Amino acid sequence: MHLVKRIAESTVRRLSIYLRFLEESASRGLTTISSEELARRGGTTSAQVRKDLSFFGSFGKRGMGYAIPELTASLRDILGLRREWRVIIIGAGKIGTALAQYRGFRQRGFLVSAVYDHDARKIGSKWEALVVRDMEQLEKDIAREHPEIAVLAIPGEDAQTAADRLVRAGIKAILNFAPTQIQTPPDVTVRNVNMAMELEGLSFALSSRDSKLDK
Amino acid sequence: MHLVKRIAESTVRRLSIYLRFLEESASRGLTTISSEELARRGGTTSAQVRKDLSFFGSFGKRGMGYAIPELTASLRDILGLRREWRVIIIGAGKIGTALAQYRGFRQRGFLVSAVYDHDARKIGSKWEALVVRDMEQLEKDIAREHPEIAVLAIPGEDAQTAADRLVRAGIKAILNFAPTQIQTPPDVTVRNVNMAMELEGLSFALSSRDSKLDK
Repeated sequence: MHLVKRIAESTVRRLSIYLRFLEESASRGLTTISSEELARRGGTTSAQVRKDLSFFGSFGKRGMGYAIPELTASLRDILGLRREWRVIIIGAGKIGTALAQYRGFRQRGFLVSAVYDHDARKIGSKWEALVVRDMEQLEKDIAREHPEIAVLAIPGEDAQTAADRLVRAGIKAILNFAPTQIQTPPDVTVRNVNMAMELEGLSFALSSRDSKLDK
Repeated sequence: MHLVKRIAESTVRRLSIYLRFLEESASRGLTTISSEELARRGGTTSAQVRKDLSFFGSFGKRGMGYAIPELTASLRDILGLRREWRVIIIGAGKIGTALAQYRGFRQRGFLVSAVYDHDARKIGSKWEALVVRDMEQLEKDIAREHPEIAVLAIPGEDAQTAADRLVRAGIKAILNFAPTQIQTPPDVTVRNVNMAMELEGLSFALSSRDSKLDK
């Protein structure tokens, strides 16, 4: 667990950005890339890029940059993308639907294996290859199918109860779209996506800007 | 612009979390809160909480904690939440639909004022009070209606072109859901929500964990 703790979320985020840029560069026929180009794309400095990558034992050659195929393979490895992950979605509302059908997940090896809801009108309805399952089945299904990641796409007031059930059933990774902070044991990793909070980041920037312009 | 640059995105994110916790505490009838409680909720230390808040001139009284009504008002002020912001959504696909109907935005003063698409089958269709507009109208509408924030909910390959149009039309804040990095001038603030990247943060954590367990 120490490795997980030592690497900041912001570092992992940059690794994901570097990987996307490498893949795009490879598709344009490039074979090497400089830390400066990676930095520009990742919104950081080339010193930070070298630090991020040296941490995982990847070193560019002076004046040559990084070999794209090798660095791509090593980033995929670090990010756990050499295998498929089974993802279950809790909540068959608008966000849940959008996520279940999001092509970008499968391209990355994230396979949505089940969607759950407690609303009888939604249970049994078909979404492409998926059928919305009864939330009552959750524990039994997890024990049998061993999904690794759960996405919470339910109202804030239901999020903690659902998270507790997921944790008791053995889930160690949760992506939380519910607009609330959930409490989990230290061995469970939670990522939060709160869309109102993202907009607040923008209103903050716009307000600071306006108050500067006023002066 | 210096104020915007000096405050890290992670600080603004914590301010949003503190605000949510304060509102929740007020609804439970509490009137004061300690930096320790705010720290626990924000996933940080009480020293960090004091630092975050002192930056904006809010100081708790020793042994008394922070007065909830005052701190709430000052956080709303800092985050630019004393006014309404008009938000336009580019892309009437699944994510765009989910966002346009997300109740949490309006509760925070983010009012979705228009949705755009270039697909003739979608243009003119009604979503509650909104009608999907033709992307061709974008510049004319922005000049007339002055929305402040734009949400990009379109495929990655179309994102940069749309962002360029928004920036030329005067938009200074973009929330990007497209799975690509967009390039904008320094006076435009961009927040990215990339769902595959969020899942990669989880697969990274699960892999690191597994490789530790293997040893």
